[in-house]
Order: sequence, then C-alpha cells, then structure tokens
Amino acid sequence: MARIVQKFGGTSVGDLDRIRNAARRVKQAVDRGEQVAVVVSAMSGETNRLDGWTREISPLHDTREYDVVVSAGEQVTCGLMAMALQDIQVPARSWLGWQVPIVTDDLHGRARIESIDTEMIGGRIDGGEVAVVAGFQGLGPRNRITTLGRGGSDASAVALAAALGAERCDIFTDVDGVYTTDPRIVAKARKLDRIAYEEMLEMASLGAKVLQTRAVELAMRHRVTLQVVSSFEDVPGTFLVDEDEIVEKNIVSGIAYSRDEAKITLAHIADRPGVAASVFGPLADAGINVDMIVQSSSQDGRSADITFTIGKSDLNRTLEVLEGNRGALEYRELMSDADVVKVSVIGVGMRTHAGVAQQMFHTLSDKGINIQVISTSEIKVSVLIAEEYTELALRSLHSAYGLDAE
Amino acid sequence: MARIVQKFGGTSVGDLDRIRNAARRVKQAVDRGEQVAVVVSAMSGETNRLDGWTREISPLHDTREYDVVVSAGEQVTCGLMAMALQDIQVPARSWLGWQVPIVTDDLHGRARIESIDTEMIGGRIDGGEVAVVAGFQGLGPRNRITTLGRGGSDASAVALAAALGAERCDIFTDVDGVYTTDPRIVAKARKLDRIAYEEMLEMASLGAKVLQTRAVELAMRHRVTLQVVSSFEDVPGTFLVDEDEIVEKNIVSGIAYSRDEAKITLAHIADRPGVAASVFGPLADAGINVDMIVQSSSQDGRSADITFTIGKSDLNRTLEVLEGNRGALEYRELMSDADVVKVSVIGVGMRTHAGVAQQMFHTLSDKGINIQVISTSEIKVSVLIAEEYTELALRSLHSAYGLDAE
Repeated sequence: MARIVQKFGGTSVGDLDRIRNAARRVKQAVDRGEQVAVVVSAMSGETNRLDGWTREISPLHDTREYDVVVSAGEQVTCGLMAMALQDIQVPARSWLGWQVPIVTDDLHGRARIESIDTEMIGGRIDGGEVAVVAGFQGLGPRNRITTLGRGGSDASAVALAAALGAERCDIFTDVDGVYTTDPRIVAKARKLDRIAYEEMLEMASLGAKVLQTRAVELAMRHRVTLQVVSSFEDVPGTFLVDEDEIVEKNIVSGIAYSRDEAKITLAHIADRPGVAASVFGPLADAGINVDMIVQSSSQDGRSADITFTIGKSDLNRTLEVLEGNRGALEYRELMSDADVVKVSVIGVGMRTHAGVAQQMFHTLSDKGINIQVISTSEIKVSVLIAEEYTELALRSLHSAYGLDAE
Repeated sequence: MARIVQKFGGTSVGDLDRIRNAARRVKQAVDRGEQVAVVVSAMSGETNRLDGWTREISPLHDTREYDVVVSAGEQVTCGLMAMALQDIQVPARSWLGWQVPIVTDDLHGRARIESIDTEMIGGRIDGGEVAVVAGFQGLGPRNRITTLGRGGSDASAVALAAALGAERCDIFTDVDGVYTTDPRIVAKARKLDRIAYEEMLEMASLGAKVLQTRAVELAMRHRVTLQVVSSFEDVPGTFLVDEDEIVEKNIVSGIAYSRDEAKITLAHIADRPGVAASVFGPLADAGINVDMIVQSSSQDGRSADITFTIGKSDLNRTLEVLEGNRGALEYRELMSDADVVKVSVIGVGMRTHAGVAQQMFHTLSDKGINIQVISTSEIKVSVLIAEEYTELALRSLHSAYGLDAE
C-alpha cells in the first residue's frame, strides 16, 4: 500500500471545526487505501501567543526553554487531531517529536533534522493506524525539545515523507496551489499543475509565500513529490516535481515579487581593490543580508558607485553601520530608497531559451518602467523597480510571457 | 545543603506577573542557601481550556490523547518559569515528566506515580541549578505521556520531595495556611501553625479544599514535611507533620463541612440478612459512592429503615437505581433530601480524650439543631444536619471547642 504524508498548517487546524475538516481529508485518503502520516502545525494564533509570552517574561531568554514553551502548540493540535480521527472511526495516535523520535541538532529555535527513526511509527502505519505527528519540533541532544524555526512544520512533513519512503507529501493550506503570479494582483493568474522544485525554490525566496524554501530544498534533495493543495476545497493542487518530470515546459513558469526591499547607493566611493569587502564586511558582521549588488565605475576611473539591496527592516541598521564606517569607506554620498520592489521571472526553460531577459527589459521599457538594478541566475531574472509600478509590471510581464489564463 | 521542593498552583502562576512573583519566592530560597526543585501547575484557566477542547472534539475520547493535550498546560508554565528565574540570575532549567522521568502506571487521566529517577535532576540541583518540574504529568508505559488527575500537581511535588530526600515541600497557594474552619463563615477562625497529616486527610476528605487527600497521603507515607503557604504574602504557613511532632495537641484541631451531600431514606424495608448488600450492591455497580449509613429496625422487628448519604450530583442517578430495584428491595417508601450539610469535628486528641462527640451533640442541641445522621472514626465525628444551620453550627462548635481567636 502506498504511504503518504499529509501536512496541515495553522489556518487548516485553526479551530476545532477546521481540525474536524482536516480529519475528514485524512479519512478520504485512508478510504482510498493509503497509509497516512499526518503532520500538524499549532492552531493559528497559538504560536504567536506562546512566543509573545516568552518575549514578555524575558527578552533575552534561553532558546532551550523557548522550545519547551512553543512546542506545546503543536502538541495540543496533535492530540486533538488524533481524537478527531478516532471520532470518525479512523484508528490514530499522536506522536510528539521526542516520541518518534525526530532527531535534530542542538540549534534551539532553528534546529535541523538529522534523522527520523521510523521503526516504531512505520510499524504502526503498516498496521493501519494513522500517525499524527507534531510538526516543527524534534528531540535534540541531552533529551531536550528542539523547534525547527520558521516553516518548520513543512520541513517536518517533507523529512518524514522521505524517511517513510512516502509516495507523496500533501501540504494542505489556505490556497489551492501555486499560481503563475499573485492572483490578488493579476486576475489572469493561472494555477500551475506542476512546477519544478528549483522554480518553487526561486519563487519562495523571491517573495511567494506558499512554501518555505527549506521544505522545498529538502523535497528536492530527497526527491519527495510535494503537492500544495487546499484544505477547504476538494480540488487538485500543484505538484512539485523534478524538472525531468515536466513534459511541457514553459519558458517562464511564474512571476514573483517582493516589496520587502530597500536600495542603498554609495556614490563616489574610492575605486580600489578591496572596496567591496570593506563595504560588505561590516554589514555581514552585523547580520545584515545583502541581496542584489551593482558596482559601476565613474568616468574618471578613480571612484565608483555601489548600489545594493537589503531587507526593508534592515534599512536603519544598515545606514547606521555605513555612517559609522564613513571614515574608512571614503564615500561622498549615501542614498537610500525603500520605495522599491523586486520583480522576478522564473522558469527552468531559461536554461535552453535565450532572450528571456531581453523580453523582460523590453516589456518594462514599453510601459515606461525604469529598471534600477538587475540580477540574474540560471533560471531567473530579477529587476528592481519603483514600487508604484508593481501591479503594472506584473500584469505586463504575465501577458508578455504568455501566462494569462484564457 | 538542604533540598526543598516548592510547588506553585494554577492561581500562583496565573499570568506572567504571577510567574515572576513566584520566581522571586524561589530566589529567596536560593539566597537562603537552599537547593530548590520547583513544581508548577498550568496557568489558571489553561487546563479548563484544553480540557474543554478535548470534550468538544470528541466526547468519548482516548484518554491517552487527552493526556497529550492537557499536559501542554504545565509544559508552558514550566518553560516560562525557567525563563523567569534565569531573568533574575537564578540558574534554572525545565524538566517535563518524560525528561525526569516521573514514571507512572498506564491509567491515563488518573495515573499513579511509580518511581522518580532522581539521578539526572539531583545532579543538576547539586550543581546549584533550580529544577523546574512540570506537575501533573508523567511518563507511562510505551513512552506515552500520562496525567495524574485532580490535584495531581500536589502529588507530583510530594513525590518529588520524597524522591529527592527534601527537607520540606512548600505548597504555594492563594490561601496562607490551614484554618481551624472556613474563615469566610467563622470570623474567629485561626490559622494553624501545625496540623497532623491524618487531621489534614480528614479535613480534605470532609470538604476543606486546601490540599488534595492524595498528596497528603503521599506525604504521610513518605514522612515529607509539607507547608501550605501563601504565594502572595510573605508569612509562615501551616506545617503538616507527623502526629508525634505536635507537642501541644488540641483535642479538636478543626471543623470541616461539606454541602455536597444528599440524604436518602428507604423506609420499611424488609429486615432480613443481606438487605444492606441488596441496597448498596447496585449503587456500587453504578459507581455511586455512599458515605454515612444508618440502619434502624422498626418496632415489629420485621422491617427496617435505611438512611445513607451520597454526593449531591449523584442524587438523581441514585433514585433511578433504587426505583429500578423496588421489586427486589421491597421498601415501602423512598425519601430524599438534598438540603443537608455534613459538619465534622477533627482532632488526633480524640484518641486520648473522651467526651468529644458528647460535647458536639450538646452544643448542637443547645442551639436547637437536630442531628439526622452520625458517623465517627478514631479522630473525627461527623453529623448530618439541615443545611440552613451550617453557619450557626460551625460558629457554635468553633467556640465550644475553644478554637476561637482571641
């Protein structure tokens, strides 16, 4: 019999009715003859409530104790889900991280799964019992509870699917799949039947919020077929698969955008070897992530302009660091702009098709949209533009790449 | 260095401020040079919230899953308390039931502690770290979470104190000790400095709500000195000690009352061998606890009256059972009265002093209070009277036995 993993996120188990609804989705799979492991998140709001308490009781708290407190959220859902399943005659039992065990390293609050012991749980699943596993948590060294950090429950589900040799891992969520772009902005956005892991990875890291990059990476590494599917509507979702499994490849599969960007320009900085290191070293030390970077020499060849982007929330700290290093950096002017958006076109088809970037630049130029920074990788082209053009840019590109629904 | 256990109940850790307050009480002990293990309950309201969810999701739920859900309450307090201690520079770590482990049997929802492994936790306490232990929970067979049922956190604290060889177990609560009687009714009630375990056991089972009988039994069996003490005022509480340790014994130490009583009378029931068994057998089968019992023969010697008391909430079921067995029991009349109260005088001094019961009957008779049923044990006398006389009876008896505060 085929094993599958079904993962329900916070909104999908947000109250008792939703837990019951999720239990019915599990029962459908059981009735189809599948062996099911269910991974659950905390009921929506619970993690924030518990997290808030930890901050309030002690701003600089022990992350080991943080994990004890917040992991209680998934524990509660886990027990309730097992009860809901039993209530509709589906044999089930709950498994907390330490009971499986899901073994992690000791990076409390952002632990990584090292191994999952499937001997016990696999035996119970083979015996026809649904295993309800608490997501987001594991067992670290010295018998202590760990949590996996943001998006951890998705990672739990994928890792469990890999360990159990599951045929598929369904991520139940409040959207019904992965779209060519944000349907709230582009009415003609289409749901994708299939998307390559790498495309999804780019989409996630470029602003699409359906899945965390970490879970996608895990799925890609272990070749776990993921499906993003609605908890509330019984319609097929989007499958994440290996590139080779996509027969009809689009050149561009999706268009992502991120408003969480700010642009910094250091004008007329001394153009000498090591200048980039002297700018970005102190930022790295301050834990600030730099994304796009452009360096251009001025005409006299003795000074340069360096432009780069960072997360909006890091803007003030970035300016402080750069101003604090003004003496060493010898720049003439420091400019910043938080009214920018990064728009990216993504598609594995770019590997074999030329002209994708060119088409993007043309399309934006035709609409009078100025490109401030460009960065490219093998399967995506990103541009930074003024934030006010977000919607126009997305719609124009969506049409230009032939993605519009009919 | 002396080891002590401090237990904080739900109201004592009811919000973050109260957890901080409790942490300061722990710090006082640490500053006095004591090695401390802290046992915490769930924040007040949490257990009810979680318990309510389990009932709502499935009325007839698996008690193993119930334990998974409700034990999350103590887990949260446990982590928060460790954080609050660390925040005031007291080294601390949390210990969940399965981490200690506190080993129990597999009676989920009402498990009994079988053993506590103190090797790890004792070592950490010796090293100067406060152990914050989740009350109410343990580790049952097959690696599953168990909970101890009502009053379980007190039992956890006493069992831990016994296992650690602690000098004392302080039960922090919202009252400042054990009183001679309910101070809300008798203004002259006095706080007792010391009370014998057995007296406290009688008080608890006769209606006083300070401590659960189970924790007192455990303390008595393991000779753990218990102190009932206020979380909110820094004043000495009441010590529960062995009878021999009380030098100046009162003949009567306290007066308890319970309004949760109902009286049943079966009039003119056939007076033959086995009649009591035929009355009480079906009640026992229905899980109904019978307390006081009086049987009196009628003058003709062929029929008897049987009067007994039960918990108020069992009244309707009791009447149903008795009516259902009317044919077999052959009683002429079935009467019931829920407007009754059981008043008890308690004191180990009764063992060596005669006339305690006599004084009780006189005192009540002087006030015109009719005694409906009497039951006695070695260290208590209980009477059932009409509920409307509760306050009058308590005040009169409190004076008569010389318990009034000056």
